[in-house]
Amino acid sequence: MKKIRLGMIGGGAGSFIGPVHRIAARMSDEYDLVAGVFSSKPEKTIKFARQIGINQDRAYPDWQTMLEKEQQREDGIEALAIMTPNDTHFPIAHAFLKAGFHIICDKPLCNKLENAQTLLQAHKDSSQVFCVTYNYSAYPMVKQARAMVANGEIGDIKQVHLTYVQGNLAAYDPEEKNTWRHDKSKGGASLVLSDIATHAFHLGEYVAQTEVQEIFAELGTSFEERVVDDYVTCLFRFKNKAKGAMWVTNAAAGAEHGLGFRIFGTKGGLEWHQETPNELRHRHIDDFEQILTRRTDGKLHPQAEQSVFLKFGHPEGYNEAFSNLYKETATAIRHLKNGEAMQLPDGFPGVEEGLRGVQFIAACLASNEKGTWVNI
Amino acid sequence: MKKIRLGMIGGGAGSFIGPVHRIAARMSDEYDLVAGVFSSKPEKTIKFARQIGINQDRAYPDWQTMLEKEQQREDGIEALAIMTPNDTHFPIAHAFLKAGFHIICDKPLCNKLENAQTLLQAHKDSSQVFCVTYNYSAYPMVKQARAMVANGEIGDIKQVHLTYVQGNLAAYDPEEKNTWRHDKSKGGASLVLSDIATHAFHLGEYVAQTEVQEIFAELGTSFEERVVDDYVTCLFRFKNKAKGAMWVTNAAAGAEHGLGFRIFGTKGGLEWHQETPNELRHRHIDDFEQILTRRTDGKLHPQAEQSVFLKFGHPEGYNEAFSNLYKETATAIRHLKNGEAMQLPDGFPGVEEGLRGVQFIAACLASNEKGTWVNI
Amino acid sequence: MKKIRLGMIGGGAGSFIGPVHRIAARMSDEYDLVAGVFSSKPEKTIKFARQIGINQDRAYPDWQTMLEKEQQREDGIEALAIMTPNDTHFPIAHAFLKAGFHIICDKPLCNKLENAQTLLQAHKDSSQVFCVTYNYSAYPMVKQARAMVANGEIGDIKQVHLTYVQGNLAAYDPEEKNTWRHDKSKGGASLVLSDIATHAFHLGEYVAQTEVQEIFAELGTSFEERVVDDYVTCLFRFKNKAKGAMWVTNAAAGAEHGLGFRIFGTKGGLEWHQETPNELRHRHIDDFEQILTRRTDGKLHPQAEQSVFLKFGHPEGYNEAFSNLYKETATAIRHLKNGEAMQLPDGFPGVEEGLRGVQFIAACLASNEKGTWVNI
Amino acid sequence: MKKIRLGMIGGGAGSFIGPVHRIAARMSDEYDLVAGVFSSKPEKTIKFARQIGINQDRAYPDWQTMLEKEQQREDGIEALAIMTPNDTHFPIAHAFLKAGFHIICDKPLCNKLENAQTLLQAHKDSSQVFCVTYNYSAYPMVKQARAMVANGEIGDIKQVHLTYVQGNLAAYDPEEKNTWRHDKSKGGASLVLSDIATHAFHLGEYVAQTEVQEIFAELGTSFEERVVDDYVTCLFRFKNKAKGAMWVTNAAAGAEHGLGFRIFGTKGGLEWHQETPNELRHRHIDDFEQILTRRTDGKLHPQAEQSVFLKFGHPEGYNEAFSNLYKETATAIRHLKNGEAMQLPDGFPGVEEGLRGVQFIAACLASNEKGTWVNI
Repeated sequence: MKKIRLGMIGGGAGSFIGPVHRIAARMSDEYDLVAGVFSSKPEKTIKFARQIGINQDRAYPDWQTMLEKEQQREDGIEALAIMTPNDTHFPIAHAFLKAGFHIICDKPLCNKLENAQTLLQAHKDSSQVFCVTYNYSAYPMVKQARAMVANGEIGDIKQVHLTYVQGNLAAYDPEEKNTWRHDKSKGGASLVLSDIATHAFHLGEYVAQTEVQEIFAELGTSFEERVVDDYVTCLFRFKNKAKGAMWVTNAAAGAEHGLGFRIFGTKGGLEWHQETPNELRHRHIDDFEQILTRRTDGKLHPQAEQSVFLKFGHPEGYNEAFSNLYKETATAIRHLKNGEAMQLPDGFPGVEEGLRGVQFIAACLASNEKGTWVNI
Repeated sequence: MKKIRLGMIGGGAGSFIGPVHRIAARMSDEYDLVAGVFSSKPEKTIKFARQIGINQDRAYPDWQTMLEKEQQREDGIEALAIMTPNDTHFPIAHAFLKAGFHIICDKPLCNKLENAQTLLQAHKDSSQVFCVTYNYSAYPMVKQARAMVANGEIGDIKQVHLTYVQGNLAAYDPEEKNTWRHDKSKGGASLVLSDIATHAFHLGEYVAQTEVQEIFAELGTSFEERVVDDYVTCLFRFKNKAKGAMWVTNAAAGAEHGLGFRIFGTKGGLEWHQETPNELRHRHIDDFEQILTRRTDGKLHPQAEQSVFLKFGHPEGYNEAFSNLYKETATAIRHLKNGEAMQLPDGFPGVEEGLRGVQFIAACLASNEKGTWVNI
Repeated sequence: MKKIRLGMIGGGAGSFIGPVHRIAARMSDEYDLVAGVFSSKPEKTIKFARQIGINQDRAYPDWQTMLEKEQQREDGIEALAIMTPNDTHFPIAHAFLKAGFHIICDKPLCNKLENAQTLLQAHKDSSQVFCVTYNYSAYPMVKQARAMVANGEIGDIKQVHLTYVQGNLAAYDPEEKNTWRHDKSKGGASLVLSDIATHAFHLGEYVAQTEVQEIFAELGTSFEERVVDDYVTCLFRFKNKAKGAMWVTNAAAGAEHGLGFRIFGTKGGLEWHQETPNELRHRHIDDFEQILTRRTDGKLHPQAEQSVFLKFGHPEGYNEAFSNLYKETATAIRHLKNGEAMQLPDGFPGVEEGLRGVQFIAACLASNEKGTWVNI
Repeated sequence: MKKIRLGMIGGGAGSFIGPVHRIAARMSDEYDLVAGVFSSKPEKTIKFARQIGINQDRAYPDWQTMLEKEQQREDGIEALAIMTPNDTHFPIAHAFLKAGFHIICDKPLCNKLENAQTLLQAHKDSSQVFCVTYNYSAYPMVKQARAMVANGEIGDIKQVHLTYVQGNLAAYDPEEKNTWRHDKSKGGASLVLSDIATHAFHLGEYVAQTEVQEIFAELGTSFEERVVDDYVTCLFRFKNKAKGAMWVTNAAAGAEHGLGFRIFGTKGGLEWHQETPNELRHRHIDDFEQILTRRTDGKLHPQAEQSVFLKFGHPEGYNEAFSNLYKETATAIRHLKNGEAMQLPDGFPGVEEGLRGVQFIAACLASNEKGTWVNI
C-alpha cells in the first residue's frame, strides 16, 4: 500500500501548527511528506526542508513554483496541506484545487465570502477531497455527541452554549501588531472570529445539527492599543427554534484553551471540554449523570469508536484528533484512487463547512456594526 | 444575651424555602421564631405552627392581623422574614418596615420598579435593617472573590460570565400553570428572571463591583404550552467598559443547580460554582492556577474567613451561606439595640440591591421587547 | 412537641467539635441545650454557659456534680453529649448510662477494650439510646452506598480501599505535646488511630457490610520529636474474602481533610470523598460511570433520601451529616418516650460500632508490634 | 539526517502495544521501521508486514533468523523493539544486545532475577542504548514531579501512595487461561505484578527518588477459577525512612486505567493520575493548592518542558509519552553515531530500572509467601 504523496505550504520554523500537521500525517501512516514551501524566504525553506528530511529540489521558493514543478513530476504530490496566513488560503487552495490536487486547508477557509463561494463551486466541479481543519470536531467524544444528538438521545435540541476562553492575548504586546494575525488585511477583519470563534461556531453546528439562522454579536478588544478584536459574545437563534450563546475570547488572563460546549435537549444534555477531551458528560432528565469515555467495547456509536486510537483509560489528545482528519482524508483519497465513489464520514469538515465559518464571521461583523440581529 | 424575636410570613408546609429560613435562623443561634403566618388558610397556619413549636395565639390568619397584634405585645417580634409569593413582598415589607420592624425579605424585592423605589425611600426614612436574601453572595468563597477583586488581585475587570443552568422546569407539567410562580400577576412578568436570573445578576455585580450599564437580552420558553419564560440569554456592558454574558435557564434537562461565575481581569481570573461552593479557582496571568478553599488560617480575606463555620476540609453548603445573612442581620440589629450605628458587612444585600434586581428584570424585558441594547 | 433536654460535657471555648454538636442539635430542632460542663475550670464553664445562653445554675464544675444535680431536677436533662478527651469518655458515659440518660459520645468510644465491653454490657442492660458520633456515615451519599451494596448493586464485594489523608499535623509544633491528643494517657496509645483512622475503619465496614477479620498495620510518626503516631498503613482481610487497604495520616503537608473510600464488587464500584460529599461515583462493569447526587426525587434509596435536608443542587456538608445523627437519636428517644420500641436506622452507630473501633485500634497496635497479621 | 533503522519483534495483528510502538516511532520522526517478526506464524508475519509497508524479505519467521540476516545486511537494523511475551524478552534482548543492537524492550525486563542481572552485565559490557518502556514516567508532568522532588520543592519525602486500579480482568473469562499472560511460564509468576504493578512501582521510585528497601505484600485473585493474581496490596519502607502503600489490581469492575501517585514531603505534596495526565496537583503546607499544567513558557522544569509536544491547553496523552522514550533513545543513539558520549535524560528507564522491577516482583512474591516484611 503506497503512501499518499503530500506537499505542505506554511508551517515552517517556529510555527505551532506545522508540527501538528506533520505529526498528524505521520500518526495516520498514510502520507509521505515530499515537498513544501515553509517560508516566504527561500533560504529558510531550504534549511527547514533539510531538517525535516525533504529533498532540496522539492523545497520551493513559492507556491506558484511548487505548483508548476509538482505538476510536471511523475511522482508529484497528490495532496496539499495549507497552513499559511489566512489571506493566502484562497489563491493557493483555488490554484491547487483547479490543478487536481486534494486539499487540507486550515480554517478559516478564507477571509472573503465571495472567495469561499468560488472555492465551493470549484470543489463541486472537481473530484477531489477538500478538508478544512476543524480539528476539534474529530475528537471521538465530539463525534459521539453528534451521533447521540442525531439519534435523539437528548431529545429535541433547545439550548446550545459555546465557550472558547483562551489566554494567549491576555497581555498587550507592542510587537503583536507586526504579526500577520494582527494585520486585518492578512488575518481577516476580526482576529478573535477568524482565529478561534470559527472553531466554536463549527463545533456548535456540528453537534447540534441545526443551523444558526440569526446572530446578535458584540465584538471588541480589551486594550486600547490593540488593533484587532480579542473577544466576541453572541446570541444565536437556530433553525429548529433552539437558542444559544457564545463567549469567545483570546484575552482571558490565565486561561489556557477553554473550548467547550454544553447542549440541552428535551431529554438531557451533553457537555464537553477540549482540555479533558476523553470524557463527555451526559445528563439525563430522569436519571443520574453519566461520564462517557473514549472506549472501544461497543458502547460508543461507531463513528466515535472508529476514531479511537487507544484502548480506554489511555488518554488521547489534540494530535489524535488532528490525525483523524488526515486519516479520513486519506481514506477518501484511496477510494478515489481505486475508482470508487468518495466516501467521507458523517460531518466531515469540507468546503461547505468552511464557507459556513466565513458566513459566521460576516454575520458577527454585521451584527456588531448595526447593533441588531442579523441573518446568517 | 437575649435572642431576637422573629416572625415569619410564608414558608409553611411543602415550602422549600421555609425550612431554609428556619434552619438558617437556628444555625445562627440569634433568633427565636415566635410568630407567623404560614398559609393563606388559617387552619393550616395553626397546624403548622404547632408542628414547629409556635404558640397558637401567635399563628395568625393573615399578615395584617399579625402586624396589629405583634405591635401591641411587649414581647412582640423584632424582625420579620418574608417568603411569600413575589407580588406580596411589597405590601408586607412596606407595612412592617413602616411599623418599625427589621426585615428579611426573599428576592426579588418586588415585582414593580415603583414599589422598589418606595421601599428604598421607606428604608432610608427608617432606622432598621433590611436584608434581601441574595444568599449566594454569602458563601465565604464568593466573599473572597469580591475581596480579591476589590484588592486588585485580578487587575482591571474585563470580562464577566454568568451561568445559572437549572433543570427543574425541563419538562412541561400541565399543573404548573396553577402555581403562583407561573402566574405573571404573582410571580412577575418573567419567571426565569424573577426566580433565578436575579440571583445571577446580583452575583455578577457583587463580585465584579462595577455596574452593568447596558443589557441586550433574549427571553423565551422551551415549550409552547408554557406561559412563562424559562430561559434568558444576555449580553452586558459594564460601567468600567468590561463586557459580559449570561445564560440562565430553568429548563436544562438533567441539570441540577448550575449557578456560577467566571470573571477575568488584566491579571487573572476567578471561577466559582455553587454546586462545589468550597472552592474558588484563581487563574494567574503568569503562574499556575490555584484552588482557593474555605480556610481559617489567615489565607483568606477577613470578610471571607469570618463567614466560615467549620475548619477547612469540612465542607459547608447552602444552609451555612443562608445562615450568614441571618447572622449579619442579627449583628446589625444588636448594634442598633445597643444604641450603636448600624454596621453591615461590605456588600450586604439590602434594599438597594433589591431595587437593582428589579431594574435588571425591567431592562431585560425592555431589551427583549425592542431587540436592542437598553440602559439599566 | 416538647424538645429533648440536652446536656453537654466538653466542647467549650476554642473547641472545634463543641460548636459542631450544638449546631447539629439546633439544625435538628429536637433539643434544648440546658446544662453543661465546658471546661475543667469552673469559671470558664460559667463564662461559656453565659455566652451560649445556659443558666448559670446548670453550668457545673464537673460531670459528677452535673450528674447528681440533673438527676434531682424534674426538668433535668434527658440526653448527654460527651466531647471530652478520649480517656474520660468511659467514666462519663458509663455513669450517665447507668443513671438512665441517653448518650451521644464522640469517637473513639474509649481507650481500653475492657471499658468498651463494659459499656456494651451496660447498654444492653439499659433501655437508652447510645450514639457514637461516626458522623461521616451519616452523609446521604454514604447511606446510599451502604444501601446499594446491601442491595447487590455492585455485586460481591472484592476490594475496599480507604484513605484519610489530612494535613493538620504536617508540621511539628513543640507545643503540641502539651495537648491531650498528644498525651497517650489521655488521647490513647496512637493518635492517628484514635483521632481519624477509626473514622475510616468504621466507614469501610459501614459501606462494605462485611467484617474485617485480619489486619496488617504499620504505625509511625513523621518527626523524631513527635511522641505520637501520625500515620498508619494497613492491609485488611475481610470475612467474605474481600481484601482491602488503608492509608491514614494527619501529616500530609497541604492536604485538607482527605477521607474517602473506593469499593469494588463483581458488578461495579463506588467512590466517595468527604470533601465533595454530595456526589457518589458509581462505576459499572458493563456501562459508563454515573455520578449519583443527593436528590429527593425517588432515585436514591430511602435511607439516603430521608437524610437529605435540601433539594438537589443545593450543596450540603458536614453540619447536615452530623445533624442527621442528632435527628436519628431524637427519633429513637421519642419512640421510647411514647412507649414504643426503639427504632434506629440501619447501620446507626452505637456501642457495638464503638467497640469495633476500639478493637481496630488494638489490632493495629498488635500487628505493628509483632510485624504480622493479627485477628480483630 | 538519516533515520534510525528499526526492527520489531512482536506487536502484530490484534496487539495493543504494537501500534503504540509504531506510532511512537513515527511521532518522533527518528526511525524507519524496516524489519520484524510479528507472529510466531511466518505467514502471519508476512501478511502483517505487507499491511504496514515492510518488505517481505525482512519479515522474518523468527527472531534468530532476523538476527542473523540483519547482521549481514549493510542496511541492517540499528535498533530493536521487543514486545513479545515476557518470557522471551530475555533471550531476544540478550542476543541482540550482544550482537551490537540498541534495544527498546517492554517491561517487565524479564521474568527471572538472574536473567535481569545477566542483561545488566551485558549492557555494561556494551556501548548501546537500552530502554525499558516504563512509559508512564515519560509524561511531562511526571518528569516535572521528579524534578520538583529533586529540587526540594516538597521537602523531605515522607509518604508515597501508589494506585493502579484497572478493570480489564474484572470479569472471569474461561478463555483467558489460553493467553500467555495467564500462563505463568510465559507471563511470569504473578500477572498483576508483571503486567501493571511494575509500572506503579517504577513510577513511585522515579518520582520519590529514594529506594524502597522493605516490602510487605499480599497477592491474590478475585476468582477461584483464575490461575493468576489479579490484585496486590503492598506496604513500603523507603531508604530515607519514608513510608508507602500500593493498591494495584486488574479486577476493579468498571475502572478504566487508574494509575496514579500521591507523594508528600515536609513542605507539600504532589498528585498525578494517568487518566488526566496534563495536570499535576501541587499542595503546599502553607498555601493553596496549585494545578500545574503542561506548559512551555518556562514555568516547568526543563526536563518536563522538553518533553512537551504541544502548546499548553492542547491536551496530550499516552502516545506522546511513549514517543518521548523513542525520542530520547534516538537522541542517545545519534550521540553515539556521532562519536559522542551517550547522553540520556535524568531518570531514563534502562536495564537498571528493569532489574529493579524484577526485584520488586521477587520481593512481593517472597513477602506474600512468608507473610513478613522482606528486603528488596
